[in-house]
Amino acid sequence: MTSTREQIIRTTQRLLGQSGLSGAGLNQVIAASGAPRGSIYHYFPQGKTQLVTEALGAYGDFFQALVSQMLSREAPVGENLEALFVALARGLDKNGYGNGCPVGAVLLDLKAGDDPLRAVCQGVISRWEEVFEQYLAGIAKPRRHELASFIIATLEGALMLCRMESSARPLRTAALMLRQLLELECNAIKT
Amino acid sequence: MTSTREQIIRTTQRLLGQSGLSGAGLNQVIAASGAPRGSIYHYFPQGKTQLVTEALGAYGDFFQALVSQMLSREAPVGENLEALFVALARGLDKNGYGNGCPVGAVLLDLKAGDDPLRAVCQGVISRWEEVFEQYLAGIAKPRRHELASFIIATLEGALMLCRMESSARPLRTAALMLRQLLELECNAIKT
Repeated sequence: MTSTREQIIRTTQRLLGQSGLSGAGLNQVIAASGAPRGSIYHYFPQGKTQLVTEALGAYGDFFQALVSQMLSREAPVGENLEALFVALARGLDKNGYGNGCPVGAVLLDLKAGDDPLRAVCQGVISRWEEVFEQYLAGIAKPRRHELASFIIATLEGALMLCRMESSARPLRTAALMLRQLLELECNAIKT
Repeated sequence: MTSTREQIIRTTQRLLGQSGLSGAGLNQVIAASGAPRGSIYHYFPQGKTQLVTEALGAYGDFFQALVSQMLSREAPVGENLEALFVALARGLDKNGYGNGCPVGAVLLDLKAGDDPLRAVCQGVISRWEEVFEQYLAGIAKPRRHELASFIIATLEGALMLCRMESSARPLRTAALMLRQLLELECNAIKT
């Protein structure tokens, strides 16, 4: 039972990451997940918005855990951040460059206004910012928030270019640049 | 005659920037531009792909000219780059945060594979990279290319977060971070 639900959620994440909201209609999710048609209405009675909301939330959890795991290692934060980006680059090399971030893809599909999915994306990204901030200890609070937001902007932009180039090069470049920026930041504190 | 064509192109850019490919169907462009239905088929006989191709190309030209204009000013490149990002932030403050980059929005809507629009986006972004590289004179060639690609990734990611937050803050933060990174880069050369 749970596994059909999870299968639907994962398929939705993948389809969103590949081509945004228009690629993740209920029929497309049913076809791609192999789940019985009835199950999607059973688990997500409120339809596409509920499905996308839960898919983005679960993706948020997954990425949050990955960031925590990579940044809690015993090394300077710049090195850990570089390692996180390199791990993501390796993931693209292994699984294909067409798999982007579902949150970013949804964000660029939403018209301005009070779309409930915008709040969902914002909630996920706020949580990510908080995790990054947590590992930027030692840096002054407002600056820490700026850095966390910049790291996420860089990540989303680099993932976009990776899809375009069918290469993980932009993520590796971003890894290097962010490490340098963080080293600069940490040295400024020490002196 | 030309002005109807331009009007269609500009409307397409705006709709693409607001909600990607699915927001810029021919009917939507006709409705939003106020152009007579026949004119769109007259000017773009090959339909949506031709229209989107030309809209992205024209947007590419516009942004390329803006980058050249801002970066050719008599000041250190880090300052000029910061000024470019701040000018873009002011544009969002004035015109609304829902207007994203049409190239980025299209990129996240394309499935992996040989979509002709992917090549169009790639062409536009390559041209932007070249303009940035041109103004990073003094920095070694491979590094210059990395920096140019990183600047574009940062820009696209920051624009995405600006839409999310309905604020130009992420662009202003990116402006500051990139200036610091470029100053670091230029100092490394001098010493």
